Amino acid sequence: MAINLDAVRKESEPVVFEYSEKDVILYALGIGASNEDIDFVYEKNLKVYPTFAVIPAFPTMAWAITKTQVNLAMLLHAGQKITVYREIPTKGKLTTVARITNIYDKVKSALIVVDAETKDESGTSLFNNTASLFIRGAGGFGGDRGSSTTENKPPEGKEPDFHDELVTLKDQNLIYRLSGDTNPLHVDPEFAKLAGFDRPILHGLCTFGFVGRSILRSLCDNDTRTLKSFDVRFTGIVFPGDTIIVEGWKVNSKRYVIQAKTQGGGEVISATAGLK
Amino acid sequence: MAINLDAVRKESEPVVFEYSEKDVILYALGIGASNEDIDFVYEKNLKVYPTFAVIPAFPTMAWAITKTQVNLAMLLHAGQKITVYREIPTKGKLTTVARITNIYDKVKSALIVVDAETKDESGTSLFNNTASLFIRGAGGFGGDRGSSTTENKPPEGKEPDFHDELVTLKDQNLIYRLSGDTNPLHVDPEFAKLAGFDRPILHGLCTFGFVGRSILRSLCDNDTRTLKSFDVRFTGIVFPGDTIIVEGWKVNSKRYVIQAKTQGGGEVISATAGLK
Repeated sequence: MAINLDAVRKESEPVVFEYSEKDVILYALGIGASNEDIDFVYEKNLKVYPTFAVIPAFPTMAWAITKTQVNLAMLLHAGQKITVYREIPTKGKLTTVARITNIYDKVKSALIVVDAETKDESGTSLFNNTASLFIRGAGGFGGDRGSSTTENKPPEGKEPDFHDELVTLKDQNLIYRLSGDTNPLHVDPEFAKLAGFDRPILHGLCTFGFVGRSILRSLCDNDTRTLKSFDVRFTGIVFPGDTIIVEGWKVNSKRYVIQAKTQGGGEVISATAGLK
Repeated sequence: MAINLDAVRKESEPVVFEYSEKDVILYALGIGASNEDIDFVYEKNLKVYPTFAVIPAFPTMAWAITKTQVNLAMLLHAGQKITVYREIPTKGKLTTVARITNIYDKVKSALIVVDAETKDESGTSLFNNTASLFIRGAGGFGGDRGSSTTENKPPEGKEPDFHDELVTLKDQNLIYRLSGDTNPLHVDPEFAKLAGFDRPILHGLCTFGFVGRSILRSLCDNDTRTLKSFDVRFTGIVFPGDTIIVEGWKVNSKRYVIQAKTQGGGEVISATAGLK
């Protein structure tokens, strides 16, 4: 399968994302915020979950797919990292420019790395996204293998420093997709079957948001200024209605190793979180 | 308490409501649609719940409050009737003109009746809303008492022709309010306490939507062209998380008497439904 290697180092046009408090609240509901998280779901004293950072940058993933001329059906979202420099405003007009930093040759597959920087209207950088897109069948072009993936393994035999459980709604997929990821894999039963699933699966970035929300309440007392980075590998599937179990191990006061699994299922996220 | 009786027969400026498929789906989720109602929550073959009719007309209620110069804190939404002439489009730009048809003197309180007609861009009427707004303490001005309220009573001792149960989410209020009714009564715990409730209550029009959805699936096989009218009196409070039990009695092939109550609670809606 072909991949356009000339796409490396290419930069996207600026992608403009204009949003309101309603969009911020809709995202919060999409990642499971409730009446108990009043500051995240109500305009009065509204706060923005740091993982909202993925939303303005989301369209640049489609840009990278188009630019590299790969087959969307062969895409796996392998990883996502956010680095948050400042509190995200509750409304505004943001601009994101993406860049394909590398295309690695993983022999059978290719790994596209897309870096996207998002700024506010004054030109101040707010946050950065790095997306890792795994394209099945697109490797073997004799390119750089890249480094092996960081394992983020929890320390052997040590109890986690925090443990949290989050229930996803059986219709969580329907709420989350209204924040912009309308891929039919997450709503269309027939499409999901063709992709090999019994029914629509939850968006990886929805699980990303649930786990980020857990970290914020477990480690940051819901202070949105405290989460600096969240670096995630997607390692399993979540179905709407699943319960996500999040556990974290302290590496030092600024760094945790995070593992999320579904109740009765396997690991779905392996990550690290950086605190300010 | 004063009420501006000169408001009777006054007409609003046209209220423009522009909406997308996303708004239609968000409304459907607000009234409890799920993955099992795929045609109402997914852009492919999208259908619009007839009770969506209340959304474009909603701002005219605020207009009527302002026009009659009554105290918002004394308002009870007593009733809502929709008459749907045509299938509601999945997106578009609609225009609503409202008219205060009457202000009745209920001795202690006043009853404001607001009629609102909504048209599409070609000027074709799509649906009509009649809202009944009860203003506590604003009666006694020597006006027309109006007719006594229709009781919509189910026939004595007769089993209902249909019975349906709908579970509201404990965060149903948060989803529904994103369709435009941001009254703090439905989200702010402190505000709800001041109004005499232990916690935020569900929007009357959210319950209206749940019951309308039940009628559509119970009597109309989810054919959105079949529901012609839905005439509701709000008779009780629903809390997010409550289960709503809907029962209907056939009057004739075109007309049902509808009663909704909460599980373990009292009646919340007394209504009639007209079918095409």
